[in-house]
Amino acid sequence: MRLLIANPNATAPVTAACVLLARAAASPSTEVVGWTNQQGPPLVDSWYADYFAGRPLLRGLRAVVPSPDGVVLAGFGNYGTAAVKEALDVPVIAMAEAAMAMAMPLCHRFAIITTAPRMIAYTEELVSAFGFRERCAGVTAVTMPPLGVAAREDALLIELATEVERVRVLSRADLIILGGSRLSPFAEPLRKLTSFTVLEPLACAVQMAESLVRLGIVQTKTGKYAPPPQPFESYE
Amino acid sequence: MRLLIANPNATAPVTAACVLLARAAASPSTEVVGWTNQQGPPLVDSWYADYFAGRPLLRGLRAVVPSPDGVVLAGFGNYGTAAVKEALDVPVIAMAEAAMAMAMPLCHRFAIITTAPRMIAYTEELVSAFGFRERCAGVTAVTMPPLGVAAREDALLIELATEVERVRVLSRADLIILGGSRLSPFAEPLRKLTSFTVLEPLACAVQMAESLVRLGIVQTKTGKYAPPPQPFESYE
Amino acid sequence: MRLLIANPNATAPVTAACVLLARAAASPSTEVVGWTNQQGPPLVDSWYADYFAGRPLLRGLRAVVPSPDGVVLAGFGNYGTAAVKEALDVPVIAMAEAAMAMAMPLCHRFAIITTAPRMIAYTEELVSAFGFRERCAGVTAVTMPPLGVAAREDALLIELATEVERVRVLSRADLIILGGSRLSPFAEPLRKLTSFTVLEPLACAVQMAESLVRLGIVQTKTGKYAPPPQPFESYE
Amino acid sequence: MRLLIANPNATAPVTAACVLLARAAASPSTEVVGWTNQQGPPLVDSWYADYFAGRPLLRGLRAVVPSPDGVVLAGFGNYGTAAVKEALDVPVIAMAEAAMAMAMPLCHRFAIITTAPRMIAYTEELVSAFGFRERCAGVTAVTMPPLGVAAREDALLIELATEVERVRVLSRADLIILGGSRLSPFAEPLRKLTSFTVLEPLACAVQMAESLVRLGIVQTKTGKYAPPPQPFESYE
Amino acid sequence: MRLLIANPNATAPVTAACVLLARAAASPSTEVVGWTNQQGPPLVDSWYADYFAGRPLLRGLRAVVPSPDGVVLAGFGNYGTAAVKEALDVPVIAMAEAAMAMAMPLCHRFAIITTAPRMIAYTEELVSAFGFRERCAGVTAVTMPPLGVAAREDALLIELATEVERVRVLSRADLIILGGSRLSPFAEPLRKLTSFTVLEPLACAVQMAESLVRLGIVQTKTGKYAPPPQPFESYE
Amino acid sequence: MRLLIANPNATAPVTAACVLLARAAASPSTEVVGWTNQQGPPLVDSWYADYFAGRPLLRGLRAVVPSPDGVVLAGFGNYGTAAVKEALDVPVIAMAEAAMAMAMPLCHRFAIITTAPRMIAYTEELVSAFGFRERCAGVTAVTMPPLGVAAREDALLIELATEVERVRVLSRADLIILGGSRLSPFAEPLRKLTSFTVLEPLACAVQMAESLVRLGIVQTKTGKYAPPPQPFESYE
Repeated sequence: MRLLIANPNATAPVTAACVLLARAAASPSTEVVGWTNQQGPPLVDSWYADYFAGRPLLRGLRAVVPSPDGVVLAGFGNYGTAAVKEALDVPVIAMAEAAMAMAMPLCHRFAIITTAPRMIAYTEELVSAFGFRERCAGVTAVTMPPLGVAAREDALLIELATEVERVRVLSRADLIILGGSRLSPFAEPLRKLTSFTVLEPLACAVQMAESLVRLGIVQTKTGKYAPPPQPFESYE
Repeated sequence: MRLLIANPNATAPVTAACVLLARAAASPSTEVVGWTNQQGPPLVDSWYADYFAGRPLLRGLRAVVPSPDGVVLAGFGNYGTAAVKEALDVPVIAMAEAAMAMAMPLCHRFAIITTAPRMIAYTEELVSAFGFRERCAGVTAVTMPPLGVAAREDALLIELATEVERVRVLSRADLIILGGSRLSPFAEPLRKLTSFTVLEPLACAVQMAESLVRLGIVQTKTGKYAPPPQPFESYE
Repeated sequence: MRLLIANPNATAPVTAACVLLARAAASPSTEVVGWTNQQGPPLVDSWYADYFAGRPLLRGLRAVVPSPDGVVLAGFGNYGTAAVKEALDVPVIAMAEAAMAMAMPLCHRFAIITTAPRMIAYTEELVSAFGFRERCAGVTAVTMPPLGVAAREDALLIELATEVERVRVLSRADLIILGGSRLSPFAEPLRKLTSFTVLEPLACAVQMAESLVRLGIVQTKTGKYAPPPQPFESYE
Repeated sequence: MRLLIANPNATAPVTAACVLLARAAASPSTEVVGWTNQQGPPLVDSWYADYFAGRPLLRGLRAVVPSPDGVVLAGFGNYGTAAVKEALDVPVIAMAEAAMAMAMPLCHRFAIITTAPRMIAYTEELVSAFGFRERCAGVTAVTMPPLGVAAREDALLIELATEVERVRVLSRADLIILGGSRLSPFAEPLRKLTSFTVLEPLACAVQMAESLVRLGIVQTKTGKYAPPPQPFESYE
Repeated sequence: MRLLIANPNATAPVTAACVLLARAAASPSTEVVGWTNQQGPPLVDSWYADYFAGRPLLRGLRAVVPSPDGVVLAGFGNYGTAAVKEALDVPVIAMAEAAMAMAMPLCHRFAIITTAPRMIAYTEELVSAFGFRERCAGVTAVTMPPLGVAAREDALLIELATEVERVRVLSRADLIILGGSRLSPFAEPLRKLTSFTVLEPLACAVQMAESLVRLGIVQTKTGKYAPPPQPFESYE
Repeated sequence: MRLLIANPNATAPVTAACVLLARAAASPSTEVVGWTNQQGPPLVDSWYADYFAGRPLLRGLRAVVPSPDGVVLAGFGNYGTAAVKEALDVPVIAMAEAAMAMAMPLCHRFAIITTAPRMIAYTEELVSAFGFRERCAGVTAVTMPPLGVAAREDALLIELATEVERVRVLSRADLIILGGSRLSPFAEPLRKLTSFTVLEPLACAVQMAESLVRLGIVQTKTGKYAPPPQPFESYE
């Protein structure tokens, strides 16, 4: 099967990093293909960026040929996830919903660590929109450096571990979701620093997309995710 | 004061109709200006259309000169409402949230009648996203004709009145919100057919925008609606 | 239009202060009239006081001649808000519900600062009863001096600013509602001390009452707020 | 022990009927005393009547000598239940909260049948205010004749049985609470018509009041139900 | 009447202590009989222990002759409470649900102190399963010594008092439920250390069971708690 | 990898049918092994049966050698799912939670069709306990014949299709979960009768278990699913 790893932002190195992670999480027989939202913003750091990302994401994903067997939206955000599911006939999974769905059977309550304090409200809305508020103990944040500036690994790991501990004490979460693809590389080292289960969302999404493709199941095309009622061209 | 009535879709006659309604609802001293999202879709009839509308809406509203004193988003949808609030420093009100906010002190529970069965799930998500689920008895729909085809007024009125009655019996709603600017012209005749309070959202939004401008209050710019962290140009 | 600013307690200086605030918030053409609940308690500081206020409030407001065009309940409480809406045929708005309704489009979550720790549970019930729990991050309190003792302005402002900061850190609220008419005069100086949006509820209620009067909309008289089933005299 | 059965309305025959029911439900050693809210309304049939009942209820109950060991509020409503709990140092139980508390261990979901369609919204607010929304499948109504007109027993029983059946099918409730003291006499005959568990709230309240008196437990007087902060006289 | 105090675990001294507490809480004419789940685990300290307790509890309680008039499950847990209610035709009350039901009319929000940090998640699930989440401010824990090791009374009391204070400040609870029969003996001394209302669940359950027996009410046998569909023997 | 398909009841033909379904859903390299709870009840048709199933299930699964890489609980129920997760160090997935987790990204709201009206309340509790109430539109039922009596395929299919249609109209669900392993064989023919997405839970659970094994993720063993605090033998 062929999975498209769609980076909603325009930053190619993020796509490349995501493809590596996805490749490591995918089954050997799965072909992993990266895709960059070249007309999108460099980073989805606000609702403003989210809606700037959505339109070219939709147009771009519809144009991919040959059509992949499944699509993973490789960012911890929205940018029109529901619209992509309407537009495509193959399974579409956003990495945030995959991580939360997979967390459900694993814990009492999960916490999400996002990449900037500014994104906490945005992420809480995401949790609600995807229907997982019941088990979300809270959203917290570390502070990633600006794009292009490498995070000092040691300092960021300590910051992550501190947040994990704070979340454990304050909100009794017992599982952590890393809320942003730029945090994904820190999953493995963070697991060594903490006894908590840490979910890396891209891996969750790759597995869930593979599952759906294998089972021949797609988002409900006769209900919420029915195709838009007009011909696609008419929306542009 | 100068209020911009921003039509999220590209259909100019809808803008014109909205301006008429807004003009009738506004205070005499308020200047009402229409704006059409010319790169947007003809109609917001899906999540797909919603995200197609968002990007040109954001870019367009930022470019309006002179800047208005307040902005009313004249459609019963989302298309990046939060993003517009981040981008602008003046009060921004979507007509759906204005209607629901105004309904709260007026009823036990409200129901929303939207323009197509396909938009029920979309509208339920909107109710949740804007935080009004607690008092929403449900969302129902009539079936509007395609754009450009005039609705047969009599038939549509009967359909609306039937839905109002169904909603009263089944969900014990005691207030109706018309969920779409194309339904707004039917508010007045519908009120004659039913003893229910019927809210026409555009009027609610104009009033609420005027209130915010008068009180000098704007969406919280140090919290959820802080400006995007990067210069605006960098998102394009 | 003529708005009645109904003070639910018997303390005339509070009425006078409220009229000044309402006057400042109202449109120039609006006539603002104060009304004091002379058989009510000096202050609504408990559920006990709330129910002592309700009966004379109802009898008194029904007797006002000429009938005003709208009524603002100028206290951050309940004292039979629903009963007043049943009894009158003109729009009735309690200042708490107006502030919360107006906060909805402006923030991620609001916090309320009330006038005494004893009123926190009371106010949380109010938030629930008015249907706004979804977006309320919490209720907190300062400690107002007893009636008749002037608050030391500096000390109270510092106390308010401290609560604002505490609320920001602990509950991630990004908008503050001042929960009591005695706190209303501090809205303006508080705004100078904090970057938060601060809502003064009386101004919100005046604006919302004006809106309803202009639009000719009243609480639903065929549903929840139908007139009591017996002649008014029979209840006494 | 001495229990006061406080009828919130002014209709003495209702008090007498309640005393009979309470007497039948109480332990042999319990003294049951009736009390009528003589300045209250003839019937609590609206929020308006509720607040008219509250003030004389509070003043009257405080004046009862000798003080009873526990107080049962013998109406399916609010009329300042929280205020009575603030004012008195003995256990106070409203019959609605007693019935709902007792229903919790007995069923999957309960339904309430109230005495008039007009009281459905009122009763739903009561369920929320008392904290039992989680397990309430819904509120429905029969139509009682006006006060003074005897209900035709046969017809009312059939109406009750019909509602029970409707509730079973539509909302999957598996326990019925009779929501009004005028319905209490129908509990026994209704049980013969249906296999459902039917709770008569006054009996529940008498039992719960006895339990609290025996255990020496009272509503929390250092928290929500602390005495009002001023001397009682000062509220009048 | 004859009440069975069923200890879900196999530790006879716990049964004995429960019988003493129940005897003190019961009416003089009530016969209190202890029962130990001899094939159960020594202590219910996990979900694992919970399900180990359930099967012999069910088989054992069905075999008790003569059948008691009511059954109190004397542990702060689940171990098949719903299954016992299905199996028996007499009222069955778990002490956790009795305490929570009785707390509802007494407070704004209750907190539960359980016997081990490990049991917090378990107890939060219990609160949800029994339908009382609305008013539960949170669950916290002290650390009981292992079975057979006597708790140092002074130290445990101080630990309990500290938790009560922490809960008051952090979660605004105003009533405490002791969440485990091993904590029950500390209710009385704890009440001397704090002004809070402290509920001892076994006493609540005894009172509620007596109430149900007196009123002739049993868990709904035509709904959720209908007998299992097959003959009892066929399940073994 | 080796997956254990654990049938919580004692009926070997059900195990065999589940193994076939699991084998069809599993990856080619996965070894699928069936396991029957021989001391369990013939069918889990009540809470009573649920707790009868739990104890031998726990003891039996701990004793399986060699230990599998993951365990699928092949029934649409609870029977100590949390306890199994405590007891084992490998991923454990109940088929109900897998189906609901997988449904989340696929639909607006899902409905569950269970095997008997008696199981509706049980299943609704299951939805709550697993944390998926937010998106569950409701639970409904068909009527399966007793164990050992073959379902008449045509009649059952028609009954299923009728329920699907009813659920679509009444609750606006847009995805169906078959709530019971005896219904699993009907998934495929049902899909031919309806345009709805139909989830067969066993396939979902097999896929999710494979995902967890591949990613090396297990239920949180330092939080909710920590091992029981005492040696396993001590619970018996």
